[in-house]
Amino acid sequence: MASAMVRTMSTAAAGAAPVSLDTINPKVLKCEYAVRGEIVTHAQNLQQELQKNPESLPFDKILYCNIGNPQSLGQQPVTFFREVLSLCDHPALLDKSETHALYSSDAIERAWQILDKIPGRATGAYSHSQGIKGLRDEIAAGIAARDGFHASGDNIFLTDGASPAVHMMMQLLIRSEKDGILCPIPQYPLYSASIALHGGSLVPYFLDEETGWGLEVDELKKQLEEAQSKGITVRAIVVINPGNPTGQVLAEENQKKIVEFCKNEGLVLLADEVYQENIYVEDKQFHSFKKIARSMGYTDDDLPLVSFQSVSKGYYGECGKRGGYMEVIGFSADVREQIYKVASVNLCSNVSGQILASLIMNPPKAGDESYESFMVEKDGILSSLARRAKALEEAFNSLEGITCNKAEGAMYLFPLIHLSQKAIGAAQAAGTAPDAYYARRLLEATGIVVVPGSGFGQVPGTWHFRCTILPQEDKIPSIISKFKEFHEKFMDEYRD
Amino acid sequence: MASAMVRTMSTAAAGAAPVSLDTINPKVLKCEYAVRGEIVTHAQNLQQELQKNPESLPFDKILYCNIGNPQSLGQQPVTFFREVLSLCDHPALLDKSETHALYSSDAIERAWQILDKIPGRATGAYSHSQGIKGLRDEIAAGIAARDGFHASGDNIFLTDGASPAVHMMMQLLIRSEKDGILCPIPQYPLYSASIALHGGSLVPYFLDEETGWGLEVDELKKQLEEAQSKGITVRAIVVINPGNPTGQVLAEENQKKIVEFCKNEGLVLLADEVYQENIYVEDKQFHSFKKIARSMGYTDDDLPLVSFQSVSKGYYGECGKRGGYMEVIGFSADVREQIYKVASVNLCSNVSGQILASLIMNPPKAGDESYESFMVEKDGILSSLARRAKALEEAFNSLEGITCNKAEGAMYLFPLIHLSQKAIGAAQAAGTAPDAYYARRLLEATGIVVVPGSGFGQVPGTWHFRCTILPQEDKIPSIISKFKEFHEKFMDEYRD
Repeated sequence: MASAMVRTMSTAAAGAAPVSLDTINPKVLKCEYAVRGEIVTHAQNLQQELQKNPESLPFDKILYCNIGNPQSLGQQPVTFFREVLSLCDHPALLDKSETHALYSSDAIERAWQILDKIPGRATGAYSHSQGIKGLRDEIAAGIAARDGFHASGDNIFLTDGASPAVHMMMQLLIRSEKDGILCPIPQYPLYSASIALHGGSLVPYFLDEETGWGLEVDELKKQLEEAQSKGITVRAIVVINPGNPTGQVLAEENQKKIVEFCKNEGLVLLADEVYQENIYVEDKQFHSFKKIARSMGYTDDDLPLVSFQSVSKGYYGECGKRGGYMEVIGFSADVREQIYKVASVNLCSNVSGQILASLIMNPPKAGDESYESFMVEKDGILSSLARRAKALEEAFNSLEGITCNKAEGAMYLFPLIHLSQKAIGAAQAAGTAPDAYYARRLLEATGIVVVPGSGFGQVPGTWHFRCTILPQEDKIPSIISKFKEFHEKFMDEYRD
Repeated sequence: MASAMVRTMSTAAAGAAPVSLDTINPKVLKCEYAVRGEIVTHAQNLQQELQKNPESLPFDKILYCNIGNPQSLGQQPVTFFREVLSLCDHPALLDKSETHALYSSDAIERAWQILDKIPGRATGAYSHSQGIKGLRDEIAAGIAARDGFHASGDNIFLTDGASPAVHMMMQLLIRSEKDGILCPIPQYPLYSASIALHGGSLVPYFLDEETGWGLEVDELKKQLEEAQSKGITVRAIVVINPGNPTGQVLAEENQKKIVEFCKNEGLVLLADEVYQENIYVEDKQFHSFKKIARSMGYTDDDLPLVSFQSVSKGYYGECGKRGGYMEVIGFSADVREQIYKVASVNLCSNVSGQILASLIMNPPKAGDESYESFMVEKDGILSSLARRAKALEEAFNSLEGITCNKAEGAMYLFPLIHLSQKAIGAAQAAGTAPDAYYARRLLEATGIVVVPGSGFGQVPGTWHFRCTILPQEDKIPSIISKFKEFHEKFMDEYRD
């Protein structure tokens, strides 16, 4: 008793702040999220400087290549999706004849269909905590059409983007630092952040850069056993396919081995499949892990599997709408109830995001009024992304000391930079990691923002950065030439 | 090493499920959220039964009075807000002349103003992790106009409704079960759920039903000291004003004492102010805790204070939009950075919700084209809510064995039911709490869904239920008569 009371009283008495870095949750302190970390804060400060004094820096604008945020770089939203959202936000329009002059007829029809799925057509009401049932059924139908295997709306949990869904699963699975989650290295730092916030242990498995960021099951086994030897109970494995930040697309045979591994080891498979529409090479195709598991004959009884999807990625890139879902299969009814309970504490995800999630899984079909213009928009975005990925990859590979794997999918390149001892020394002198030093110098010379590889994890002693392929296509040549100029100067400056 | 490996291997070998109630995070198991709990699940099942077989039950529809979800019960959205959202979702409309036939001119103008605050006018881009700066500034201006004291957009964190904001603060403050949060009893169960999920201790303080759910500082002190004597470090106090589920509106003098208490004891004041627009009595007024603290001369250096606001409540009731914010003051810069970091892991809240949050804090003004119709809608909703609150309160008080405090604000009544020993015995025989038994019988007889008081906490041995005042006004008489009929029969059935 005495010590607690004395502590509180003395705090107040001494006028010390009730909350300080010493007294907050240490898990919060430990969590890191480089995608919006130090380098981005520095970029925002430079941007303010530019606004005040446009001539003060060697560039006239900041180019945010740090984050998969297509519309911030000028990508236009898909018209049909926005028409439907606009109508659902203001359903009174649907009764007015003038509406037909402004909206396509299939958007109007779709808005009616969606409203009819919402109890009382109330888009302003909390929905079921998993999301509106009719929309979940529509998403399930889209999954079934994609995979060729049954899907149920009862297994869909609609969420405000994929991130809260990932947190929900981490919260469910992690009891203490003795629980581990297998994560790829490099990884998207949402995973390391979420594991840190929930007090678990990240068990790394390394992707093989030499083989195009290959995911080897032998490596999984090795890391699993090493974790177990330290007393860690590994609960789940995160697989990001297509890869972030690494851009590889897994081959079917590889996926089968991963499923087999999960089944044998009793792991939950957490499948980040948010880039499922972003494939840029002819010889690769996206296969969901559920399709793979079902094609191997595995049922709900064989392994628990969660697939994450988001409206933020794909060709739609609707990051600001915060829509997404997870398909949850292979859990017992009583565990499912616990997932539902946690979802219900937050009531529901935003209904516009729910509607958009149903639209991306059920876009216009051949014969619909919007179909042709929709396909022009979709193909235009995806083919341009493929060209941008290739142009940037080739540019990186043309530079001294940089090697860069192909972006088969997703929205990023993750080049390897061979830094000289002199450059590494300069970084040490500046008190930062060598790749962070490189990224900072790049920003200060060109205005281009990339994320240092250390934010994602990498083989110790190697250095990378993540750069999105999202600047608009007409900007790519000038980005390449700015980058090239900076890089050559940097290499010359730090030649050993 | 051995034990962990054996456990994992034997799990897989034995074919036991990788995830069971025994192996999930016990904090998840412990968390409870009665507002969408057992009684609501039962109601949903009955609803399905009614759909299949409309004659099977003694009522023809379920009446959801369990949750503050106005639009699910027929409340119409505010036209101006929806016009602006609709335009921002599909900005291409703004260039078309036909748009003027469908939207009010001030909605068009406001949509332009909002788009101009969004970098690149990209409503589909992730925003700043605290929300769009221009919208935060607008909200700050609204707060300043409300309180008469300065507010800064830098202190606003836009969130997907108030719930995620509450979780963020609990996550920041709670390190272990040795950290306590003072919460009113009865309380809105988001707080108990969030404290359980984050592994802290709820330190209850009891509201005094006799004095209209009065909040006595002596009680706060007593409970604080009792918690401290058990070795608990109390970090913060939750105050819900207007009260949920209790509906009281705090008097200014009372608020001053609470602020003084926080200041003296070094507590963070977590002020749930989501019902700030919902006041139904002439002699009470809403005062934000920030206004109270500032009027006492306290600055940022004196106490940390977080005010939660939501688009889900008020006269707007836009629950499905998941918009809200917290105003965070009195924290040191380094702790603020930690809050920002956690916000950044989830990237940002949904942009439509952000826009709506700016609209509720800056609605149409006198002279705007929409002003008059807006005021008709707003006043219509609020005056009707006041009449409904009064009618239900009087009806409850007219019944044998029920006493009910006035709803001065918020959206709920929380009547006390005096249950007979016979009724309590019947509940025990059914394996439920007496108030849960009453609520279940009410549902099965009438289709009316209320939440048992045990979901909110109550003085041991007393029984209550929470009933919203949200059914449309023309439905109130029939609800009252159904309720009355059920209650009288119930009292007769269980007369000792």
